[in-house]
Amino acid sequence: MSSERNIFNNLSPLDHRYSRGENFRLLSQYFSEEARFKWEARVELALIETLVDFGIAPKKAIDQMKKAVESINADEVYKEEEKTKHNTRALVNCLRENVDSEFRQYIHLGATSFDIVDTAAILRYKAFNDEVLIPALKELIEKISEVAYRERSTVQLGRTHGQAAVPVTFGYYMAGFVSRLGNRLESLENYSSELTGQFSGAVGAYNSLSLLVDNPVEFETVLLNKLDLNRSEHSTQIIPPEKITDYIHGIVSTFGVIADLSDDFRHLQRSEISETGEAFSEDQVGSSTMPQKRNPINFENIKSSWKVTVPKIITVYMDQLCEHQRDLTNSSSARYYPEIISHLFLAIKRLNKVMARLVLDHENLKRNLDNHKDMILAEPLYIMLAREGHPDAHEAVRKLTLKSEETGKKVLELAQEDEGLNKYFDKLTTAEKDILNNPANYTGAAINETVEIVNNWSDRLNIERTW
Amino acid sequence: MSSERNIFNNLSPLDHRYSRGENFRLLSQYFSEEARFKWEARVELALIETLVDFGIAPKKAIDQMKKAVESINADEVYKEEEKTKHNTRALVNCLRENVDSEFRQYIHLGATSFDIVDTAAILRYKAFNDEVLIPALKELIEKISEVAYRERSTVQLGRTHGQAAVPVTFGYYMAGFVSRLGNRLESLENYSSELTGQFSGAVGAYNSLSLLVDNPVEFETVLLNKLDLNRSEHSTQIIPPEKITDYIHGIVSTFGVIADLSDDFRHLQRSEISETGEAFSEDQVGSSTMPQKRNPINFENIKSSWKVTVPKIITVYMDQLCEHQRDLTNSSSARYYPEIISHLFLAIKRLNKVMARLVLDHENLKRNLDNHKDMILAEPLYIMLAREGHPDAHEAVRKLTLKSEETGKKVLELAQEDEGLNKYFDKLTTAEKDILNNPANYTGAAINETVEIVNNWSDRLNIERTW
Amino acid sequence: MSSERNIFNNLSPLDHRYSRGENFRLLSQYFSEEARFKWEARVELALIETLVDFGIAPKKAIDQMKKAVESINADEVYKEEEKTKHNTRALVNCLRENVDSEFRQYIHLGATSFDIVDTAAILRYKAFNDEVLIPALKELIEKISEVAYRERSTVQLGRTHGQAAVPVTFGYYMAGFVSRLGNRLESLENYSSELTGQFSGAVGAYNSLSLLVDNPVEFETVLLNKLDLNRSEHSTQIIPPEKITDYIHGIVSTFGVIADLSDDFRHLQRSEISETGEAFSEDQVGSSTMPQKRNPINFENIKSSWKVTVPKIITVYMDQLCEHQRDLTNSSSARYYPEIISHLFLAIKRLNKVMARLVLDHENLKRNLDNHKDMILAEPLYIMLAREGHPDAHEAVRKLTLKSEETGKKVLELAQEDEGLNKYFDKLTTAEKDILNNPANYTGAAINETVEIVNNWSDRLNIERTW
Amino acid sequence: MSSERNIFNNLSPLDHRYSRGENFRLLSQYFSEEARFKWEARVELALIETLVDFGIAPKKAIDQMKKAVESINADEVYKEEEKTKHNTRALVNCLRENVDSEFRQYIHLGATSFDIVDTAAILRYKAFNDEVLIPALKELIEKISEVAYRERSTVQLGRTHGQAAVPVTFGYYMAGFVSRLGNRLESLENYSSELTGQFSGAVGAYNSLSLLVDNPVEFETVLLNKLDLNRSEHSTQIIPPEKITDYIHGIVSTFGVIADLSDDFRHLQRSEISETGEAFSEDQVGSSTMPQKRNPINFENIKSSWKVTVPKIITVYMDQLCEHQRDLTNSSSARYYPEIISHLFLAIKRLNKVMARLVLDHENLKRNLDNHKDMILAEPLYIMLAREGHPDAHEAVRKLTLKSEETGKKVLELAQEDEGLNKYFDKLTTAEKDILNNPANYTGAAINETVEIVNNWSDRLNIERTW
Repeated sequence: MSSERNIFNNLSPLDHRYSRGENFRLLSQYFSEEARFKWEARVELALIETLVDFGIAPKKAIDQMKKAVESINADEVYKEEEKTKHNTRALVNCLRENVDSEFRQYIHLGATSFDIVDTAAILRYKAFNDEVLIPALKELIEKISEVAYRERSTVQLGRTHGQAAVPVTFGYYMAGFVSRLGNRLESLENYSSELTGQFSGAVGAYNSLSLLVDNPVEFETVLLNKLDLNRSEHSTQIIPPEKITDYIHGIVSTFGVIADLSDDFRHLQRSEISETGEAFSEDQVGSSTMPQKRNPINFENIKSSWKVTVPKIITVYMDQLCEHQRDLTNSSSARYYPEIISHLFLAIKRLNKVMARLVLDHENLKRNLDNHKDMILAEPLYIMLAREGHPDAHEAVRKLTLKSEETGKKVLELAQEDEGLNKYFDKLTTAEKDILNNPANYTGAAINETVEIVNNWSDRLNIERTW
Repeated sequence: MSSERNIFNNLSPLDHRYSRGENFRLLSQYFSEEARFKWEARVELALIETLVDFGIAPKKAIDQMKKAVESINADEVYKEEEKTKHNTRALVNCLRENVDSEFRQYIHLGATSFDIVDTAAILRYKAFNDEVLIPALKELIEKISEVAYRERSTVQLGRTHGQAAVPVTFGYYMAGFVSRLGNRLESLENYSSELTGQFSGAVGAYNSLSLLVDNPVEFETVLLNKLDLNRSEHSTQIIPPEKITDYIHGIVSTFGVIADLSDDFRHLQRSEISETGEAFSEDQVGSSTMPQKRNPINFENIKSSWKVTVPKIITVYMDQLCEHQRDLTNSSSARYYPEIISHLFLAIKRLNKVMARLVLDHENLKRNLDNHKDMILAEPLYIMLAREGHPDAHEAVRKLTLKSEETGKKVLELAQEDEGLNKYFDKLTTAEKDILNNPANYTGAAINETVEIVNNWSDRLNIERTW
Repeated sequence: MSSERNIFNNLSPLDHRYSRGENFRLLSQYFSEEARFKWEARVELALIETLVDFGIAPKKAIDQMKKAVESINADEVYKEEEKTKHNTRALVNCLRENVDSEFRQYIHLGATSFDIVDTAAILRYKAFNDEVLIPALKELIEKISEVAYRERSTVQLGRTHGQAAVPVTFGYYMAGFVSRLGNRLESLENYSSELTGQFSGAVGAYNSLSLLVDNPVEFETVLLNKLDLNRSEHSTQIIPPEKITDYIHGIVSTFGVIADLSDDFRHLQRSEISETGEAFSEDQVGSSTMPQKRNPINFENIKSSWKVTVPKIITVYMDQLCEHQRDLTNSSSARYYPEIISHLFLAIKRLNKVMARLVLDHENLKRNLDNHKDMILAEPLYIMLAREGHPDAHEAVRKLTLKSEETGKKVLELAQEDEGLNKYFDKLTTAEKDILNNPANYTGAAINETVEIVNNWSDRLNIERTW
Repeated sequence: MSSERNIFNNLSPLDHRYSRGENFRLLSQYFSEEARFKWEARVELALIETLVDFGIAPKKAIDQMKKAVESINADEVYKEEEKTKHNTRALVNCLRENVDSEFRQYIHLGATSFDIVDTAAILRYKAFNDEVLIPALKELIEKISEVAYRERSTVQLGRTHGQAAVPVTFGYYMAGFVSRLGNRLESLENYSSELTGQFSGAVGAYNSLSLLVDNPVEFETVLLNKLDLNRSEHSTQIIPPEKITDYIHGIVSTFGVIADLSDDFRHLQRSEISETGEAFSEDQVGSSTMPQKRNPINFENIKSSWKVTVPKIITVYMDQLCEHQRDLTNSSSARYYPEIISHLFLAIKRLNKVMARLVLDHENLKRNLDNHKDMILAEPLYIMLAREGHPDAHEAVRKLTLKSEETGKKVLELAQEDEGLNKYFDKLTTAEKDILNNPANYTGAAINETVEIVNNWSDRLNIERTW
């Protein structure tokens, strides 16, 4: 049949390279053209049901419509569209074909195309969000939480400016992503729950509906309730674009967190750092010419996909401008919004897989820390000196580090030799001296806070702790 | 003095062309470099107060610090920075200069630069939002509400695809902007209230603070409470970027609504449409060569400024990626975020002025409607026929309109001549026939809904109705 | 077979809605995954040929390789990739399968994946540009030239700020697009001709090739010449990104011109202006509820597609950053570049179709001009007065137009009544007075310049004039 | 005086933080509002001169105008604009004030505002480009060339995916930036030379000029020649936007190369890599709390500024859409284009300073290479084996590297023990065995190509070699 095609003839990598599996199947159920008509037909059915509720259509119309809705498929609608040159009218004609002639007049009665199209789009976004995206994101949070908890005490060299700073724990570092992703998940839930439908006619003023019922706003409310949606307080031919813009912002900003994590892990996997990596299958080739390579290809892919996704929000902001009761320069562009969501979803699923086989190299974690031990203690040293009353501790320690660089002597050694510092040193506790001798102990509240954060989000997101 | 400069030597239009008045003065109080140090000093003061609370610093330090904070100015800090090459250290040194030597050690004790910088930035955003931006936006909503209510019954040709569609009322059209802007205002309030501060040290693990107090998270909480801020659940050297990203999205999406309105009004002011305009001063020149021009320069300016602003959010999304405990590739870029807010603020203030002298041309509103009367009635005619049982009313009417184009005869006339339609016509009520004869009456629920919406937002935003 | 799929299950509108015809087939020949491997295999063949030239591989290898290249298909490569997890190695393995064992060792010898991948990508871009895109753009320029020439004397109201300004001719207006598109076509040709290939190994230093030949740069040159490509002066693992970035800029800026034209025509098709439109088929439905609508759907679609396309260049700019000898965060993202080109191509083809059935409404063109006649003459009046020595003609005319608004009297009438202006009026020639009486004659050099421009580009682009 | 302001009250970091020095002074000479009027007045002068050439104005008008032009200042123009509400008319009025009354009528005669504004803007862009930007960029290329030549033989570990790959030389790595920046410099020169002016009146059809001269296109040509500009083949009220869009693309894509270099150097300065850094002044503070830090603040600043700059090109692409003979939604936005250029200029100047004090750590360069020696030889080993006839060398070596990981034995050792490989090993030359023993020698054509590239660009850009 003519609408079959080898996927490798497709243009979008979403439809060939990244389309061979369960993730694509899920996306397709919500965001393909086939799905589009299913959801639009669902709205047309809600209209019939409401017309029955309001005594306009006969009750029998519902069963007829249900069957018609089930039989809808994209091939047929597109064939009809070739004649009418109008997407929604084509759908309507197909539905009409499948009911007895006496019921035809009720199909689409009082509706304008975008009552159907916009409302169905919202339904698809909400459904995908609640049924697919949120669970995938929750799973990711769960996986990261597990790592965070497990590695809550694993000391890692903190890095600012790419330079050795003071230590954190690997778990605390991960807890940051738990917290940020948890927060994004709740944002997505909120944004999704704010999405509204409409049934207000060609210019949003309920003109045609007013010819059918006394209270068209009530009619709209009843209709949308059947679809678990609230109405928009005001609409033109389309739903005000702000709520979907919010939702897309939720998507893009969630992707930012995931890309941040992935970018970090690319760097942690650098040959010179090597603190973490993915368990590798035996057959996998790292490079077509350098057989030894073990590349962070999943993290690279995620960052790359983020670069593809972020700019797309500009289109969505542009679509906020829509002349008068509507121009249609947002029609084709809105057809691409699902790509934004799809990219995020695929990135989350990919990260889930990677996180499940994440490997820490504890030896290298220790090595990287030890290599900078001497420098790390500059901060606690300065704080302790200042606390004990040194009038310019920061400057004093800065000079010690310069001197250490010049002489090759250790900072602590130089500090202990420095007569001006003796009186402060004497006041330090054993635990504090211990930190100066072994900066790995200088992890502040990292361990406790890791547990706090992980527990908080397990509770909030109802994640069963398996750790 | 060397830091004085003629404004016309500045580079940014924000600092020359758009900087000569009260609006600039307000922006400068929150977003200039001078302001920056004032707010950062305020955080340093909160630190001293907290150190006193926790028994680390002596109570007297507070008064000394208060004086030091008051005397801070940017000239001085920059002079110091030339030596230290470090912004915050320069501020700290300046503060130290202004307290007695015995108190110097407490200044900045336990803090890292970005505890101060990031927290102060958040304070500035929140303060500007609550004290300046929200009130300006509320005033705009009030002005538009007034127009909406006043013109709730003024019929206007609805336009979709730039084509004559069915009517709305001008008030209902305006009510759409009331609803959308009201919703954005609440979003900005929410986003602003979600912004958090931090006081968690160089890598966010409270390392240094742990040397000073037993419970560093409590210390942070107390300190931030003095500034009316909540803490971030987790931070690195910086506050997680998502909340400020949300806020900037709030700004950009609000601008989208304002730009949409402005773009519409540009078109309504077209010579061929001329439904609205600004009252004009006698001296004003429309064109340097065409003396008769009356140009929609304010609406053009607002749309133009929107084009400048929207892409800037990409920088903010890019800044979500920040390596490990922090790289500083978000340092310079974050200095430009206030420009995004400034552009929106100036656009709102400009629109406020325009709305106050908005003029409707009721004659042209009527003319434009009347010119398309015959076409408007196609929709109600089709709905009525369908409702009365015509099996394919949409198609029947579509053919009538084509015939009307060919023959020059009016659609209604053709419809009445059509024998196949007679039986449906007979069933129409007088009121319905009236709509077909005078489509200006075909305004659906526009008037009622205008009142509903305007009242709703007056209540929610506590706007006193003067109309 | 498993890689067949109903197109309506695809995610990207490029692969469903906009994929049903000849345009898609063309795009797919260059930009699908199937095409990708064909072009990559072509580069592998050039390698074998060069190895033969340099006496490394036996001559027989070429014929074997040619057959292997022809049999390559994406299904097979993807199956192999499931094992190797490496795209190019999978292709190499498939090629190896299809030659006799003694030749296997030469396949890919001395190459690194991106020598193949990047060079093949460049080949595809160049080929599509030269064989498909440029001809389509040339056809568009031809069509617009024809309209420009035909309507070179058709007077149209000029519009600035959406306000009536002085007249142009419709042809001159169109000639602007001829000039701009001609210029873009030449840019695309230049950018395409600047694209280079590479064959420089894993880090761009010809390391491996140096083990095979004495002069690896010569080897690269010979190989690329077989593909009609120049080498990059320097490369890392990848070709320097600037040239492809230039090319994409060429695409996006060309789209800007096409979107500008389309946006203008949307407005010219507004009900109140109605100067132009598309000839309409009888069956076409304008609105599912308003049967009379004739919407500028093609122009809307083009502008909408432009909104989708423009932001994508940000990804390309981001891809200029690629760490050291390469990170792979540009790998997945570069897979989406063809979408940018595809959108432009589809827009051009769509516009070609519309331009072929473009209809001018000469009556409305005249009406719109006549409605603003009185205002138009303000400019020539001011110029004439100034030329004849009036010391402040602009101000004098500005006041006349204000007076005209107040009194309802015509500007020319007021001018002639004005005693202060008499002495200047007397000096005007008959032709000049004629312009004041009939501003439609005030078209400056529009007609001549139209002919100049159209002829210039017909010559430069070798377009045969049929007009 | 009222237009003086403390710079620290400004909003844009360009006007406070980054504005204290010679670089700002240069930018201000071209891109401030003060400069704007100087350049616009220069165009008005060219008009007077041309009017004299064509016998319309008396010769004496030129001297008068020259004086008037010199006395123009922004303060005065802005004061006048408060009355006229029109920028250019205000400038014209100020010029008129400063000539004798008999000459006033010639000022601006035949011009429309944007003949002046757009042409002056082009002049400023060209002048800044040729006089300031290109020389700065050339200096940067010179500095990098010097490093490239000096370090042409310094072996550096090549890195792909952040993983150890095969070696390059540091000089060859730098030569890549010489080549890319050289290419960008030539692009900027080309784009700048393509920028055109206009003098075609209110709608671009030379309407008003036709009232003054017989051949208005000749008039335009003569006028623009006085300013060393070519005319646009077609214009509306404005110059077609493509050429300036090209120029801005040149700016942004040049920034991409500079940001890429800076990003790389950030990573090379990582504590674990430490191959390069900036010489540091004694007083400089790295962190307000960690006194030992040496941060790559200049590279961070450059990348940050790039993030600010890139998205701005979206505004420029948006400005390609300008309705009919012009709307003014590109007026305010175009005022911000100089910021894009300013950011690049400041980044170049900053990088120039850094490059002058760039320090390589040869010890660490060697250490990083040595640490991965064993892995590096995988590629040459595979190539040699393949060349000598091994049927599946890549796979054989891949297995060796896995075995090496498991057993801890060196790859070369394992290879030599492998009986299947012996027969190939025997064929290798001494030089080749040397590469396997010491992969530092495996640098391909790096040294030669470095010299080639550096010499090429020294010649093309006329750089005097001091090395």
